[in-house]
Amino acid sequence: MRRVRYSVAMSLDGFIAGPRGEIDWIVMDPEIDFNALFRQFDTVLLGRKTYEMTHQQGAGAGMPGMETYVFSRTLPQHDCPDVIVSKDPATTLPALKNGQGKDLWLFGGGSLFRSLLELKLVDTVEVAIIPVLLGAGLPLLPPPAQQAKLRLTKHRVYAQTGTTTLEYAVV
Amino acid sequence: MRRVRYSVAMSLDGFIAGPRGEIDWIVMDPEIDFNALFRQFDTVLLGRKTYEMTHQQGAGAGMPGMETYVFSRTLPQHDCPDVIVSKDPATTLPALKNGQGKDLWLFGGGSLFRSLLELKLVDTVEVAIIPVLLGAGLPLLPPPAQQAKLRLTKHRVYAQTGTTTLEYAVV
Repeated sequence: MRRVRYSVAMSLDGFIAGPRGEIDWIVMDPEIDFNALFRQFDTVLLGRKTYEMTHQQGAGAGMPGMETYVFSRTLPQHDCPDVIVSKDPATTLPALKNGQGKDLWLFGGGSLFRSLLELKLVDTVEVAIIPVLLGAGLPLLPPPAQQAKLRLTKHRVYAQTGTTTLEYAVV
Repeated sequence: MRRVRYSVAMSLDGFIAGPRGEIDWIVMDPEIDFNALFRQFDTVLLGRKTYEMTHQQGAGAGMPGMETYVFSRTLPQHDCPDVIVSKDPATTLPALKNGQGKDLWLFGGGSLFRSLLELKLVDTVEVAIIPVLLGAGLPLLPPPAQQAKLRLTKHRVYAQTGTTTLEYAVV
């Protein structure tokens, strides 16, 4: 079955972006093979705020070869022709997971992660811990959220930058 | 020189305790040699709230063989005969660091860490990441705090529980 994988960069104090969505603190370790990572996915899952933020930053909604789903109760589909808008992850995601294809990249943000975690629809949490304390920002998982046990499945330390990737299965 | 080391257990989402100070989510990995860790210190540094919390939980302020400093602007010294109360870490800590002895264990909480980080008095951040998402609690570093760069100096994964220790120098 296709997995939903929350794969993000995080500061040691648990933020995935600065207070205004800044990502300039994310060190790109030259040893991390991003192409190999991207090739594991064919679908991106975004919350509404993250979709609007990446749009404003000119990143576009689309990544080449990826289908993008935006989860929102308010966003009109006709305003976003380049993505698929879903109001109901509890219906959309199980259908996607049971379908054909590669894994589903839960790109963010934290609020969508929290919703999908409550619905038991997240399979893995994969963080690249950047050696920085941000001091404020958008959290990995915005409180209050329910507690969730994890199981460490993989880890790697990138010596050049000290970035540490930890991969967990949601128990 | 004696180092100030912030050594704590942390959930993956960046909490060092539950909302009411709960620590029942901290898995004690049998391979972690706590005695060896404790032997590296002879002094414990506590914030006022952490001091009161550990006191209420019956833990006592004292750890055997450790001298305890509590940093507080309001706590009267005569109410706490078992510890040394300091109102002024900017004076007390440099004197301690320049003195004789083992390293100083910044036990917590996050507010004291934030104050000492701003004063450039913290040498290392050493976290044991427990494989759990708490969803709410007392943060490693309560926002808003200033950004701080770190350098990874050591790491270890404990296979039985998936606890991962990451040690950083504050740059």
